[in-house]
Amino acid sequence: MLDYRRTHTCGQLQAAQIGNQVTLSGWVHRRRDHGGLIFIDLRDRFGLTQLLFDPAKVSKEMFDHASKLRSEWVISARGKVIPRAEGMTNPKLPTGEIEIEVEELSILSTAKTPPFAITDEETDVNEELRLKYRYLDIRRGDIAKKLVTRHSAMLSTRNYMSKQGFLEISTPILGKSTPEGARDYLVPSRVYPGNFYALPQSPQIFKQLLMVSGMDRYFQIAPCFRDEDLRADRQPEFTQIDLEMSFGKPADLMLLLEGLVSAIFKECNGVTIPTPFPQMAYADCIEKYGTDRPDLRFGMPLVRIDEIAKRSSFTILQEQLQVGGCVKALCVKGGAEISRKEIDGFTSFVAKFGIQGLAWMKYQAEGLSSSVTKFFTPELLAELADQMGAAEGDLILIASAAEDRVNQALDHLRRKIAKERGLIDPEALNFLWVTDFPLFRWNPDEAKLESEHHPFTHPHQDDLGLLDSEPLKVRALAYDLVLNGYEIGGGSQRIHSGPLQEQIFRSLKLSKEEIDEKFGFFVEALQYGTPPHLGFAFGLDRIVMILTKTENIRDVIAFPKTQKASDLMMQCPTAIPFKQLDELKIRAEPVEIPWL
Amino acid sequence: MLDYRRTHTCGQLQAAQIGNQVTLSGWVHRRRDHGGLIFIDLRDRFGLTQLLFDPAKVSKEMFDHASKLRSEWVISARGKVIPRAEGMTNPKLPTGEIEIEVEELSILSTAKTPPFAITDEETDVNEELRLKYRYLDIRRGDIAKKLVTRHSAMLSTRNYMSKQGFLEISTPILGKSTPEGARDYLVPSRVYPGNFYALPQSPQIFKQLLMVSGMDRYFQIAPCFRDEDLRADRQPEFTQIDLEMSFGKPADLMLLLEGLVSAIFKECNGVTIPTPFPQMAYADCIEKYGTDRPDLRFGMPLVRIDEIAKRSSFTILQEQLQVGGCVKALCVKGGAEISRKEIDGFTSFVAKFGIQGLAWMKYQAEGLSSSVTKFFTPELLAELADQMGAAEGDLILIASAAEDRVNQALDHLRRKIAKERGLIDPEALNFLWVTDFPLFRWNPDEAKLESEHHPFTHPHQDDLGLLDSEPLKVRALAYDLVLNGYEIGGGSQRIHSGPLQEQIFRSLKLSKEEIDEKFGFFVEALQYGTPPHLGFAFGLDRIVMILTKTENIRDVIAFPKTQKASDLMMQCPTAIPFKQLDELKIRAEPVEIPWL
Repeated sequence: MLDYRRTHTCGQLQAAQIGNQVTLSGWVHRRRDHGGLIFIDLRDRFGLTQLLFDPAKVSKEMFDHASKLRSEWVISARGKVIPRAEGMTNPKLPTGEIEIEVEELSILSTAKTPPFAITDEETDVNEELRLKYRYLDIRRGDIAKKLVTRHSAMLSTRNYMSKQGFLEISTPILGKSTPEGARDYLVPSRVYPGNFYALPQSPQIFKQLLMVSGMDRYFQIAPCFRDEDLRADRQPEFTQIDLEMSFGKPADLMLLLEGLVSAIFKECNGVTIPTPFPQMAYADCIEKYGTDRPDLRFGMPLVRIDEIAKRSSFTILQEQLQVGGCVKALCVKGGAEISRKEIDGFTSFVAKFGIQGLAWMKYQAEGLSSSVTKFFTPELLAELADQMGAAEGDLILIASAAEDRVNQALDHLRRKIAKERGLIDPEALNFLWVTDFPLFRWNPDEAKLESEHHPFTHPHQDDLGLLDSEPLKVRALAYDLVLNGYEIGGGSQRIHSGPLQEQIFRSLKLSKEEIDEKFGFFVEALQYGTPPHLGFAFGLDRIVMILTKTENIRDVIAFPKTQKASDLMMQCPTAIPFKQLDELKIRAEPVEIPWL
Repeated sequence: MLDYRRTHTCGQLQAAQIGNQVTLSGWVHRRRDHGGLIFIDLRDRFGLTQLLFDPAKVSKEMFDHASKLRSEWVISARGKVIPRAEGMTNPKLPTGEIEIEVEELSILSTAKTPPFAITDEETDVNEELRLKYRYLDIRRGDIAKKLVTRHSAMLSTRNYMSKQGFLEISTPILGKSTPEGARDYLVPSRVYPGNFYALPQSPQIFKQLLMVSGMDRYFQIAPCFRDEDLRADRQPEFTQIDLEMSFGKPADLMLLLEGLVSAIFKECNGVTIPTPFPQMAYADCIEKYGTDRPDLRFGMPLVRIDEIAKRSSFTILQEQLQVGGCVKALCVKGGAEISRKEIDGFTSFVAKFGIQGLAWMKYQAEGLSSSVTKFFTPELLAELADQMGAAEGDLILIASAAEDRVNQALDHLRRKIAKERGLIDPEALNFLWVTDFPLFRWNPDEAKLESEHHPFTHPHQDDLGLLDSEPLKVRALAYDLVLNGYEIGGGSQRIHSGPLQEQIFRSLKLSKEEIDEKFGFFVEALQYGTPPHLGFAFGLDRIVMILTKTENIRDVIAFPKTQKASDLMMQCPTAIPFKQLDELKIRAEPVEIPWL
């Protein structure tokens, strides 16, 4: 019997190997019988190689064997690398110049007919069926390639972080439920019935404890869990590149993280990313793009035109200004061509964000024109065009309402228009550090301050004097990294000084009892000599999605769950025998799950 | 205020840096006031450096500051590297030739008095208190070093496996409960109330599916979970280096794994391990060492002396032989010096394993002697001495009972004696492949065959003909790797052929319904074209324990749990508010946990 161990993969052989004896093993991708010959496209993760069975050269028995081969059977073939016949080469395939003249064949396993075709082309099979047969969907090749990229991204991360002196340290998965944050997944304890562990939402507490313990620099590619109703781009299990360092400042960490991101994109995609990344303060982001994660692959900023609106006779705008709202506008380059109907579409779109009406003006040969130009003097129109940077052929869209609503609506509108008008270079990678987040936000229901991130975030040194007088103006030493409009990570400097920590707790009006209850042993730990430290966490899934140009998080996870957090392949969650639950001293009535 | 960012760590400065201006940051390890000067040992994970405050050179204010410093405060100091005064150098310390003449000091945070001293010496503080303050115990240094080794072992593994073409692929933590195996940790589903996920005991099913999916070579450093009553060397969460490859055979995988182990020991401990590792069949291991994980750091094999016993007049031995038992003996080199009392101790020791009495003979100047020599002729005694390789000064210990009991008892006795007599070189690393495990075992209660590993294990090719006739003689293509008497990993070739798989199911007397119930979708998956594949899993925790020479698994895990599976630091598991359990539609009455 033929030894099935390969000399080459199916993506490897080229003209240089012509004349070599080789053994290939893989899946039958396609069989063609042509001119009395049998051709097999043999497939593995690395490529396709053509096998040739020539009745003049192999035994009748082997030829019969070959004629029985069906798609997805696993076979092994030994033979000689020969050039393909003239006119039969396939320039699209790396192995397209050669084929294998088979001398020995072994059928390793047969296969049932798959529920969908194993092709690497786009498929219109519904995703639920593909998830049920995930192992076959991966065999199609597209997801396999994304998993290879994920592997490379993780390996690059580990080697880069290790070279920078960071230690990978695994933190527990069976942890403690936290009173704040998202909903925890719970795990019943058998030893202490009625008590529960919780799966971690992030290793935040552990990584800060590792700094208290003197480990100096920590990282981890950490599985994290949230029992939330899932949006399309969420999974109950997700993965963070999590890290923390002692005795550093944000500038040091940003430099290091730019190096990490550069290494990942270089090693995974061969792309060189220019560093340093630009930085923008949170307040400027909101003002200019209406969001703290602006997509900078295109321009079209939000322009505040409060002053022009005030001097116009457009009462709708003025009424909004009088109640504390704002007026902001977008300039769509070349947008004068946009039809009235499309503009109406924009109006309905922003209505979803609570904006009633969108004023518009087209900059045409004769100047700005629309139904609302009448509210503006010609001088004011010229000033508006100037401020918007509008030129002939452009469209100006104006929204007025409360600041938050205008920002949210125009952020979405800006991205929608950019997408529709093809303003986004699909290869572009625009990184941005967003800095100077506010330390607190106001909770109007409870009439008190809350931490924007968490109460261990360090305030900006320049704002320490404002903590008591104007706390909402205090900026945090917190920073997010934004790529193409996605927040791919975030972090902060943590408080290491006891007195400063107490001042923050006072600002948050937390009593000693509340501190104990909410943060317990962690606050105690910080009192045994805490070094200055700071950290960051990247969303690995999102980074791999960007690396592999997919919008579907399930494409970058080997065995993902549905939006109902179920696994269609394993068919779980499942009911559990009473005996097993009884050992845990818990009771539950299972609902039946309608599996695919 | 002094910038606390370091120019060097506390383990770095030597005579070559004398004259340099440096900034160090770390923990006050010790303060000594001596001859009007203040000396601080400043500590971080990398070492200790001595700081000098000289009142003649610093301001009174700074000197007062320095005199307030207490242990575990975190400080930063800037100053000049100077040679220590003559006679004051410390050759034990890499930084022992220098000290820092401090010019600027900054106190970064103060510290409460720790519950135990932060020294790297052996501590007699009880482990529960150390677990409660794990972050301080790590700061002592010993566990920190072990975590550094763990990091290196993981990084070596990942780079080695990646170079061999393996992809790291993360498999789900929220999985499906399996009807067989150890007890699962369960996770209630909120979306499907009363249904549960299970945390994985290993990624076995997923890794085989990845082979079905064509991923070719997979590995993962995988968190695994078992809800078992914990032995001293077990944890509810443990870590496997898990791997699987397609189109290979055991010899290929063993070669590759020897390379992996060599890389880990080289990169973590600088040790070169000779390869290839010796191999021994399971049956030979049992015969010669009484166990399938023999410790080969010393000799003293078990020797079967059935034939000699038969020819003696020692009826106790003969009775055992008549009921199918065996007689085996150990030769303790130089053991004639062992006292009668100690030998009685051995007898009580083996009694725990069901051996009633241990016959012994001392090889003294006048020949073999003991109370049982009378049952042997002088010729038979000479033959016994010869077979045992006994020489003057040695002790022979003889046990007889059922094979299993004799093997178990003498295995334990052999290891006990080796330990007590110092036969074990603490630096020795004796690897052994144990091969040819039996494929089946007999379950006398249900009067049927069971899989020794699992029903997907491939039988030995040479034994395929015995499957129906003598199934208990069929060897499996399964292999364990043993190091110094510990099983550090195990694996097998899996069945890839449908007809062979069906034959095994028939041998196990599994009906179609039972197959569906126990293995369900997995058996279906194997029918869509399964390549020959095989795999392995190492216990990472055990490997790191051996690398760092500890017997305590908690020493190699950053935040371990107790033998009751609780976390004394976080104090979990915990009771959960009713509202949260109600969302999951489960009910539970929490027992109170007596925290430390």
